[in-house]
This record gives sequence, C-alpha cells and structure tokens, in this order.
Amino acid sequence: MTKIVNSPERIVDEMLDGYVAAYGDYVARAANPRVIVRATPKERGKVGMVIGNGSGHEPIAMGWVGHGMLDANAVGDVFTAPSPDLTLDGIRAADRGAGALLLVSQHAGDVINAEIAVDLATEEGLVVEPLFMYDDIASAPKGQEDERRGGPGTMFVYKLVGARAEEGAALDELKALGERVRDATRTLSAAVKAGTSPISGQPTFELPENEIFLGMGVHGEAGFRRIGSAPADDIVDAMLEGILEDMPFGRGDEVLTFVNGAGGTTLMELLIIERRLAHVLEARGMRSHRPLVGEYVTTQEMAGFSISLCRAEAEFKRLWDAPARVPFFHR
Amino acid sequence: MTKIVNSPERIVDEMLDGYVAAYGDYVARAANPRVIVRATPKERGKVGMVIGNGSGHEPIAMGWVGHGMLDANAVGDVFTAPSPDLTLDGIRAADRGAGALLLVSQHAGDVINAEIAVDLATEEGLVVEPLFMYDDIASAPKGQEDERRGGPGTMFVYKLVGARAEEGAALDELKALGERVRDATRTLSAAVKAGTSPISGQPTFELPENEIFLGMGVHGEAGFRRIGSAPADDIVDAMLEGILEDMPFGRGDEVLTFVNGAGGTTLMELLIIERRLAHVLEARGMRSHRPLVGEYVTTQEMAGFSISLCRAEAEFKRLWDAPARVPFFHR
Repeated sequence: MTKIVNSPERIVDEMLDGYVAAYGDYVARAANPRVIVRATPKERGKVGMVIGNGSGHEPIAMGWVGHGMLDANAVGDVFTAPSPDLTLDGIRAADRGAGALLLVSQHAGDVINAEIAVDLATEEGLVVEPLFMYDDIASAPKGQEDERRGGPGTMFVYKLVGARAEEGAALDELKALGERVRDATRTLSAAVKAGTSPISGQPTFELPENEIFLGMGVHGEAGFRRIGSAPADDIVDAMLEGILEDMPFGRGDEVLTFVNGAGGTTLMELLIIERRLAHVLEARGMRSHRPLVGEYVTTQEMAGFSISLCRAEAEFKRLWDAPARVPFFHR
Repeated sequence: MTKIVNSPERIVDEMLDGYVAAYGDYVARAANPRVIVRATPKERGKVGMVIGNGSGHEPIAMGWVGHGMLDANAVGDVFTAPSPDLTLDGIRAADRGAGALLLVSQHAGDVINAEIAVDLATEEGLVVEPLFMYDDIASAPKGQEDERRGGPGTMFVYKLVGARAEEGAALDELKALGERVRDATRTLSAAVKAGTSPISGQPTFELPENEIFLGMGVHGEAGFRRIGSAPADDIVDAMLEGILEDMPFGRGDEVLTFVNGAGGTTLMELLIIERRLAHVLEARGMRSHRPLVGEYVTTQEMAGFSISLCRAEAEFKRLWDAPARVPFFHR
C-alpha cells in the first residue's frame, strides 16, 4: 500500500518534527533530536523515567512523555532498537539528579543496547537502573516468565511507576514497584493482517486470509495457535482462557484491563472486544477498574489486537487514577 | 479482511455496550439505548448540543459527548443516517429546558431525517434549531458552499459551539456562532485505499493501487483529481493550494488546523503531513493555534486523511482552548 511519506531515510525525523509541532504544549526535543522530553523545564530531585524503542509503533512511547508518566523517550529507526548512544542520550535527558529508571521492553536488540547504555551512563557517573519488562504469555511457557517478550501490557508499568515517580519516590522503590506491576501483568495478542512497512512498502509479514493467529508478536514473531474466522466473543474467550490459565484470578480480584489495537483494527471492533471482556470478568466475579481501550502500541496499519490484564493492588488503582498530562493518555 | 465482530445485526449495539463499559466515567445510554449521553446528571438551563450520525466512523461523535462538547449523540446503523425517531430521541435526551441545537453534517439522508425530527420535536413542544454543517470543498464549487457535504472540519463546530453552550449562551447565539465557524472552515480529503465494511466484509469502494484520489468522500463519493504516488509534501502542497484558493488567508491570520486520519493511515504519516502543513502556514505568515492531529472521523480501516482549516477569530481560540471532558479530546 502507498504510504504518505517523503523519503525512507527521513521518516523518523520528519515524524518527530510533526510531533513537536502538534504537541508542543507537552513535548520537546532534547539536545539529541531523536530524544523526546517534556516541554516543561526539568525540576531537580525526581527520578527520571526513560525508555527507548524502535519507531513504527506510534503513539508508543513518545505519546506518554509528560507529567505523571515518562521524562524521555529515545526514538530509534523504524522497527529498530535505539543504539546504545541514543539510549544514553535518553538517560542524560531524563536525569534530574536523582537517578533514572530505564524501562526496557524485552526484545533481543533492546536488551543488549540497553545494557551497554547503562554501562556507559554509569561510567560517566549517572545513576541508572534498568527494568526489563515482559508480559506476552505466548513467547515463553509458564515458569519461564523472564524469557518472555514485552508487549502492550508494559503500559501498566509506564503509568503506575510514572505516577509514583511524580510523587517523589526513590529509584529503588520505583524499580521494585515496576517489578511488582510486571509480575502482575499478562498479555495475549491476535493478528489478523500484516501492516505495511513505511520503508519498503511491503507487508511486514504474511498471514493467510481468513485466519487469525493467536500469540503473534508485533513484528511477526511466531504465535502459538491459528484459528479460522470466528465470532469476536469466541476469540476473546479463547484469549482470556490462555491468560487466566497463566495467572489465575479469584472472585473479588480487581484488575486493570487494556484492549490495544494494532493499527488497522477499528475502534468499533475494539469496543465489541471490550464488551465481551467485561462480561467474562463479571461472570468470574472480577472487577475491572477504569478500562483502557484504543490504539496505543501499533505496527503500522496491522489488523489485530491484544488483551492485557494486571492484578490490581489498592496502590495500583490509586496510581492508575493519578493525574497524567501527556499527549496520548487521559487523566 | 476478517473483522472481529459477532453478527452484523448486533454490531452497533454491541459496540455501544463496550463503549459505556470502557468510558462509563464520561458517557451513558439514554432511555433509547442508541442514544449516548453524558454520564453526569442533566443540569437545567443549558442549551442541549445534539447530533445524529451513522456508525462505522468512530470515535466521531460519541467520542465527543461530555462536558464542554456534546450532550447527546444518536447512533444510526453502519453508514446509515439515524432515523427521524432516533434523532428525536437524541433531541429529547439533550434537552435541558433551554432548547437544543441539532448539528447536522450535510449528507442527503441526514438532512431529510433531521428535518423530520425537528418537526416532530417542535410538535411536542421542544425548542430545537438545526445547524447544517458543510466544509468539504471537493463536493461543490466555490460560490455554492451551502451545497457542500460535511467533513471532518465539522469538528470545529462541535468544540467551539460546545464550549460556548457550556458557558450558558442562548440558542440563537449558539446557532449564529456555529454558522460563523462553519463559514470559516474548509476541508479537503485524500483517499489512498478503501476500508472494509464490517457488515459485508467487502471493500467500501474501489481505488486503483498506487493512486491517490483527492476530494473523495468518506463513503467513496467521487473526488476531483487523481494523482499517482507522490511524496507526502507534494500531496499536502496540492491540497493546501486547493483550500487556500477556496478561502484566501492573509499574513498574520490565525488558524485552527486539523489533520484527520481515515483509519488505516498511521500516526507516523499524519505527523509527517502535520510537519508540512506547519511549514507551509509559517511560510505564508499564518499562525496555527494548538493543532489537532489524529484519527477522529474514520471509515473503518480506510487509508487516507483530510486537512481542515478554520480561520480563527480571537473568540474561536478562546473556545478551542476551553475545558472539555470527553473520551476522545484533551483539554
């Protein structure tokens, strides 16, 4: 499909030009123009929240830079982890003299480059802790959670830890909180149709027409089960069965939920999915707290969606509700 | 393409179930469950802001129900204007004893049904004024503006008149304000690829691969010019030329801008478009005030976008900035 771009080499920089033109009330560029930071001046004494990611998945994570969430986002090339040097510039931009928490959605390139960036930052005297995030239950079996990849459920870490950082918590508390949120989160995805690379103009992977692939990663990483076209309710039921087998919930449990669209799945469909999710949780005696539904972690115009659940301690609910002033999240 | 739905007959009702499940802090259903209203109790004495529209274009207009924008949205079947009876129920739900302004995006079915609904409402003693909105310059030539169809630029009417209604303005003032906003607004669209009907599973219209159709309507209404694949900047320049010929702006003019995605055009592309728009306006000495970029008026996963400009009186800027508490707009 034709993409509305100028030249492949300039896509990311031009996107960021447009981003700060549109959202200059919230965000600005750092000394390294590939780093997006808050538009407000840095206040000292707060732990910096920083993440690097490849681009092509907008609005993540640049959409969540601002008061109550992130301080800096290092934006790599399309579908490419940011280099160690770029991530280091992200850490520098996030630093407010109280250390930084580097969030890393667990994918091979991101992990390697983040580890080097942490070493480089430490060498120059910065205090930074990495937090590796993994929530996608399709990517490694139960019992090997720490080998899983990061998925849209990392959103809960951004919001909850970001809110607590804004309240002035110290780095070690924030890292421990992030681990608790991560360990309470599970995600499963369904892929319907590939998107188109803005670089090559070609599909990012191939899927047979009229099949839905459960557990597929955002770049076409293998899933675990193919199903034919089926009613939305059946697909949601199958996905929730997988999630709830992986992390059982009990009656009375409160839960944060996130139905994410991959780019080409309409809000109409996401809401039909949300409806079934709410019914199933209610039938199991679980209570959903302020659900999130929308396109936040995309892969171009890929059709597909994911469901993420996070078991919500009382503290989690408070932090989920806390104010945030960022371009792509309301509070 | 496979759509994640249950049965075609239940699509709209199930979507609305999911919508109030997800956004119950903002919205609820009225006595007629096809009418979305504010979740907060009605306060008397404010003019009601109401609109009806076919579904399939989400989040429009249900996404803008709430404090500072709309009071009620009557949601018709997919790509189908709401019936007079449904629109009447929308008017009833919006009424707070000070009359209602019925916004009508000008399409044949919407206009006919709205006129009948106004007659029915008047017969039962309600005070309601229709405001016909038209902004798409491709649909009728200059000089015949009132024959044009409504497009995404109607957003400016929702926001500006909604803000003034919240301040307590009377019905006749609001209608006059809405006419001024409409007359100051121009939109032009570009279509790249059709979306898929959630009812039939078939494309909503046909477009040749590698062609972009300027001026095409959201349901495939004929455009006025085909261009081959071209750099984003060239496409934006051609569209702005059309808009600025239709309504000349001068140096120093302030303008509200809205780059809308049709569903399958990525945020990355919309931001590259926004970048060029900002450059062109700056080069002409025009000043853009808090630009809006995103997917608000969609046609399923159709690829395409529109650019809307509104010449901004000082009052318009103030109302654009005024608070709004709705699911799909930030202030």
